[in-house]
Amino acid sequence: MLKRVLIANRGEIALRILRACREAGIETVAVYSKADQEALHVQLATQSLCIGPAKAADSYLNQSALLTAAKATGCDGIHPGYGFLSENADFADLCIREGITFIGPSGDTIRKAGSKSAARDLMRRAGVPVTPGSDGPVDTVEQALIWAERVGYPVLLKASAGGGGRGIRRCNSPEELPAAFQAAKAEARACFGDDQMYLEKLILRPRHIEFQILADRQGNVIHLGDRDCSVQRRNQKLIEEAPAWCLTPELRAEMGAAAVRAAQAVGYENAGTVEFLLDSDGTHFYFMEMNTRIQVEHGITELITGVDLVRQQLRIASGLPLDVNQREVCLTGHSIECRINAEDPGKNFQPCPGTVEFLHFPGGPGVRVDSCLYNGCTLSPYYDSMAAKLLVHAPTRLEAIKRMRRCLEEFALEGFATNAELSYQILYHPAFVRGSCTTAFLDENLAELLDFSRRLEESEGAQ
Amino acid sequence: MLKRVLIANRGEIALRILRACREAGIETVAVYSKADQEALHVQLATQSLCIGPAKAADSYLNQSALLTAAKATGCDGIHPGYGFLSENADFADLCIREGITFIGPSGDTIRKAGSKSAARDLMRRAGVPVTPGSDGPVDTVEQALIWAERVGYPVLLKASAGGGGRGIRRCNSPEELPAAFQAAKAEARACFGDDQMYLEKLILRPRHIEFQILADRQGNVIHLGDRDCSVQRRNQKLIEEAPAWCLTPELRAEMGAAAVRAAQAVGYENAGTVEFLLDSDGTHFYFMEMNTRIQVEHGITELITGVDLVRQQLRIASGLPLDVNQREVCLTGHSIECRINAEDPGKNFQPCPGTVEFLHFPGGPGVRVDSCLYNGCTLSPYYDSMAAKLLVHAPTRLEAIKRMRRCLEEFALEGFATNAELSYQILYHPAFVRGSCTTAFLDENLAELLDFSRRLEESEGAQ
Repeated sequence: MLKRVLIANRGEIALRILRACREAGIETVAVYSKADQEALHVQLATQSLCIGPAKAADSYLNQSALLTAAKATGCDGIHPGYGFLSENADFADLCIREGITFIGPSGDTIRKAGSKSAARDLMRRAGVPVTPGSDGPVDTVEQALIWAERVGYPVLLKASAGGGGRGIRRCNSPEELPAAFQAAKAEARACFGDDQMYLEKLILRPRHIEFQILADRQGNVIHLGDRDCSVQRRNQKLIEEAPAWCLTPELRAEMGAAAVRAAQAVGYENAGTVEFLLDSDGTHFYFMEMNTRIQVEHGITELITGVDLVRQQLRIASGLPLDVNQREVCLTGHSIECRINAEDPGKNFQPCPGTVEFLHFPGGPGVRVDSCLYNGCTLSPYYDSMAAKLLVHAPTRLEAIKRMRRCLEEFALEGFATNAELSYQILYHPAFVRGSCTTAFLDENLAELLDFSRRLEESEGAQ
Repeated sequence: MLKRVLIANRGEIALRILRACREAGIETVAVYSKADQEALHVQLATQSLCIGPAKAADSYLNQSALLTAAKATGCDGIHPGYGFLSENADFADLCIREGITFIGPSGDTIRKAGSKSAARDLMRRAGVPVTPGSDGPVDTVEQALIWAERVGYPVLLKASAGGGGRGIRRCNSPEELPAAFQAAKAEARACFGDDQMYLEKLILRPRHIEFQILADRQGNVIHLGDRDCSVQRRNQKLIEEAPAWCLTPELRAEMGAAAVRAAQAVGYENAGTVEFLLDSDGTHFYFMEMNTRIQVEHGITELITGVDLVRQQLRIASGLPLDVNQREVCLTGHSIECRINAEDPGKNFQPCPGTVEFLHFPGGPGVRVDSCLYNGCTLSPYYDSMAAKLLVHAPTRLEAIKRMRRCLEEFALEGFATNAELSYQILYHPAFVRGSCTTAFLDENLAELLDFSRRLEESEGAQ
């Protein structure tokens, strides 16, 4: 096993990694910005080092500072967590070049998975369904019109080099297409210095279904079942659950096999996630993207499988084989996660970090809390507003929903606003209780959900 | 199901019952003494009522106040928790007479299990092994000498009506017996108004192994596996684990079957525990006593079985059958509980209640916290000093030990002393890591364990 790991991250994921290392007998080096010197993981690490000012670019994204810290403290591994440098192929390469194990896939794999249009081709060749669309680049409006006619409107025009929502336009009809094509192309040129475009059918009101993957150096690739992350606002997931309620065992097996093929197609190693869109009929699924890191919502998979994913990451990076095989993966019960963000949903989700004046987390059976918060700590405005994850596990989905409701009733935080009450409202919404939310759910029902005065009815009828 | 339950208890178990009720859609009525008006479960209950002054005799033990409160608030059930009135047969009868469901066994069953010598006879007849000893009462020193010779020294002379350690004497040789017999008899007469004695072989350095039982009104009786509670100080359990490390599958099956027979022998209903002594060879076991209530350490059984015991209590009391059968009970992984008491082990375990000035509980995978503590709350000197239970679950015993160590590292409490550091030391003790602790362990090693300066070695070699 690795002996000493530098945790190149902060917040709850840094603490999560620290816990896994501690339990595996691996020493930890915490790095922190000046804003984070009192962070929980910094206090609990074997050793800790300040690597720069609060701005992430000057600290958590500073590759040379991280590598210097790792070498100065004798680390043999770096865990990037999620966000920051976790999907930076150059950083992964740099670590290897410096003789330090990057706890994640190779730079090559990150690159393959990161390029949207290349990944699309790779998946198609591997027999993983992708959204209907153009075979490769679309150079002219005329070509775009032909492809759009073939796959059916609405369509998306997308920059091959794209990401982060830039260089994308939706077209509902042939009339809209020429202007949209030019606009997307111009934006792509400005953003990425590359205006190559391709075209995809827009899947309306899809569900976001993703599969957790583990792959070791010995060539074993398995999936650990699925998660439904459809409750999201502008691609920001809010409530996740596992397994996905809408999948039949047959569809789950089919999608799981496709996820494994997707991982194999990019030569995957370590923990990753294959994200799919499932259409509104719940019958067709399409590859969306691959996340080459541990995800925020990994805990709900841990709850239903009993597999410690971060521990597996450490094992894999140490060159050890997976200690679980596909046949042994068994999904037990149902789990739900609510992300607690320091933001005010009533004020357009404006982040509102501050100092924790009073904090009380829920407890008791089937409850897990992953959080970097403690009484008296200050949330910095420099970083992501996610401050805690509340997770529950119960034998059935309805019991999990009721357990999460009582968790949110027990949860108390004073000092700044959070989205906890919004999550509580969602847990009572008939569409959520029925398990019928698509990615459109939250935006379409936001006004109703933000009316905290409405009467919440216990929903017994579900399932 | 029951509609509204009065929780006739306080502290963490009141909160535990409240959580189960909340998740089952049952309303709760919290009753509290003047010392407990700010307690967590009081704040979270559907309704709450003050029933008297701080002294338990004037509040939590006041049967008529409890019944008046239950009737005034329209409760159809009373959950007694543990301690207080939970094993009071008259209170169980009284509830039934007043038309309120007592969530526990009948008064008759409590009486049968509560009388030590009667329970011993009952168990022997049911084929449950009891400690070698006299067949029934021993009236004279001469009879006692004959029985002692037959079962072998050392022996215990015990009052038939005994309890709480009164009316008991140990004899190591025939020379000691006459005086001990007269002393025990006199004490029994003084304490219980009944000087009938019986004699038992003293089992030296036993383990305390107990089986969790569930029994419904339909006649189904099952066990949910075993717990090892040998780490105790003067019969006060400190660390418990499940399953017991020392049992072979054959012995577990044999003891489990005996536990089920024990429950059947007293016509058991609801959740209960059959406690055994296992001799130092780990081959012979003997019925010790039956606890006719939920126990402090029930959570470790919930972790390895996935069965919510308090929910099952509510189901059974509502007249519903168990929703799990013996074949479905499967013990997964290993769980450990550390009780956090407000006491100072360095000062002879003197209770030291006070106000919580800073509190932080551990979190992350495989961790459960059951506690009534919150930042700023005050622990009352009037009640039991147990303030929190930290529980972990992991695939193997060694992983569970390591997880509990890191939990205790994360746990922080300022405001009064606790036994947390002592538990941390125990988790590093070779005897504990080997799984070889008997009930003598803590007393025999206390001085060493209280030397917090000694170096703790990671014990990798176990198992």
